[in-house]
Amino acid sequence: MSAAAAPAPGETFLAEIREQPAALARLLERPEAAAAGRALAERGPRVVRLAAHGSSDNAAVFGVYAFALLAGWTALRDSISLSVYYGAELDYSDSAVVALSQSGQTPDVVEYVERARARGALTIALTNEEDSDLAHAAELVIPLAAGPERAVAATKTYLNELAALALLAGHAAGRGADAAEGLAACCTLLEEAIATVERAVIPAAPPFALVGRMYVIGRGVELATAREIALKLTETCRIVADALTATDFAHGPVAALDPLFPVWVIASRDPALPAAAAAARAAQEVGATVIASGSAAQEIEGAAYRFETPAPPLELLSPLVSVVPGQLFAWALARARGLDPDAPPGLSKVTLAP
Amino acid sequence: MSAAAAPAPGETFLAEIREQPAALARLLERPEAAAAGRALAERGPRVVRLAAHGSSDNAAVFGVYAFALLAGWTALRDSISLSVYYGAELDYSDSAVVALSQSGQTPDVVEYVERARARGALTIALTNEEDSDLAHAAELVIPLAAGPERAVAATKTYLNELAALALLAGHAAGRGADAAEGLAACCTLLEEAIATVERAVIPAAPPFALVGRMYVIGRGVELATAREIALKLTETCRIVADALTATDFAHGPVAALDPLFPVWVIASRDPALPAAAAAARAAQEVGATVIASGSAAQEIEGAAYRFETPAPPLELLSPLVSVVPGQLFAWALARARGLDPDAPPGLSKVTLAP
Repeated sequence: MSAAAAPAPGETFLAEIREQPAALARLLERPEAAAAGRALAERGPRVVRLAAHGSSDNAAVFGVYAFALLAGWTALRDSISLSVYYGAELDYSDSAVVALSQSGQTPDVVEYVERARARGALTIALTNEEDSDLAHAAELVIPLAAGPERAVAATKTYLNELAALALLAGHAAGRGADAAEGLAACCTLLEEAIATVERAVIPAAPPFALVGRMYVIGRGVELATAREIALKLTETCRIVADALTATDFAHGPVAALDPLFPVWVIASRDPALPAAAAAARAAQEVGATVIASGSAAQEIEGAAYRFETPAPPLELLSPLVSVVPGQLFAWALARARGLDPDAPPGLSKVTLAP
Repeated sequence: MSAAAAPAPGETFLAEIREQPAALARLLERPEAAAAGRALAERGPRVVRLAAHGSSDNAAVFGVYAFALLAGWTALRDSISLSVYYGAELDYSDSAVVALSQSGQTPDVVEYVERARARGALTIALTNEEDSDLAHAAELVIPLAAGPERAVAATKTYLNELAALALLAGHAAGRGADAAEGLAACCTLLEEAIATVERAVIPAAPPFALVGRMYVIGRGVELATAREIALKLTETCRIVADALTATDFAHGPVAALDPLFPVWVIASRDPALPAAAAAARAAQEVGATVIASGSAAQEIEGAAYRFETPAPPLELLSPLVSVVPGQLFAWALARARGLDPDAPPGLSKVTLAP
């Protein structure tokens, strides 16, 4: 046969996970985030409105922390439906909008940006497609520069969304050099984390081959990570993985646990660590199997599996590294379940509806 | 025996569901929401920050819509951890804070209010306990007036949180009479809905006795309802029920569906109905059993179960009535599974940690 061999199941997903340090390095060479950050600083918006769905919305969860902790600004994940479906008459004139879509094609995100721009918001698109509808709709564009992403489940575009948000908030606050330096350090830490964790997930995944549901717990900046790991497990492994803050977990979902229902806890060296550790203890008390990952994974006593990752010098940037165990575990577990994580049935790379 | 007989499993939960119209009527007699709304209007905050966990946070999802659609104001569900764990230096001086806790004892919500008040925010507590820590921490208090709630899973306090938010936003916008009139109409509609749906859920629940996971889909104002129904099913039936917007559902979780994995769709006569209907079609395409509830339940073609509820005159208030099928289904299904919905193991009424 003269045609190139089709990739083995999961080969594309794994290659893109491994490519993340290089993708991040490419973003750091681009000037657009710095320029957009300076434009944001000049405008001095009352509030930053983040608009996104899916894994881009998980990145937006991180964005709320990036703007608050680097710039002292209030950012919120805005309701797209308020604008697009209800035509709510909100004042956008002193807002900035940061819209995230890896494909740049998510229809209601594009429409949201068009409406906000017409009402006077400064609009910034973060997208991997510089020639997309979203890029054309917004005043400023930060290209994610992740290179083509072929696996349906996003990895390197998610990582570069986090990085672009940190750069944008950093430059808006006049702290762009700090953010860029911290992100450059993440390139090396990601290399380390990917090499180490890839070896660790292969024997760890098979015992989870029959699991149907999981909770993934995070608090603070790591809530973004919990949400993204839960989404990867759902997309590629068909597990119903629900992401929760440590406190919301204690408010009800803990009641659903049993010994066959694993709980994944994101444990990073961070002021919110005690809340994550308390959630792990509550899960263990009812006999649940606990997976711990992150820079403080070793501090989760009684965890059945631990995937430790290095801590970036800037605490805020922890989610860039701590997502790696979830990506790799999803890859290994999909294969253990006989699924192809490159192309899960029922999903397409670009979500055009509803 | 001289002691009073213990209630039968689920008796308290059902009594409190049935009591909701009376609880709402009690709230409507109280003057505090109007006074707080006028104080809000005088202050004219830049942004309204909602702070809550669990079912109170589900009410806060509705609050974002209430402030936007009644008053044209931007409200956001604030990150409690940014303030309490990270000490983020945000400017609260032109913010209002609306903190929700049924018990008034949620520690990090109390701490959040104390910090925001010290930094100059106008603070308003919505709580069922007028003598609680939260009530003492806030400048203004809106008592939920729901009466003592004894079942662990909240029902009438959730309903009155929705109503108090609608009153607060309405009075802030000078439209308090509209809101109060719409809410008074809900008392009658709730009576109707509870009587009709209570009969319908009893035969519908047993086929779900072995279900371990569900998705509950809503969009727009009904996202609050989807989240609250999912939480009731999780708390009382030990189902992992994940609430999703119609669009986020299409972005990944649809991949996890199979014919044994039911999907509940909240379908109300509302601009977001097409998105909910599209999600129902996507679920049916992979063979999932669909439950439809809400004022437009009949428009969800192919639904295996439909729980229709009357539409309030004011579209925004739909979630006050559309939550009822979820409450009653949770009650009926818990009994079908041999569980006591009054006191699920592992949960307590007041969540004090972490």
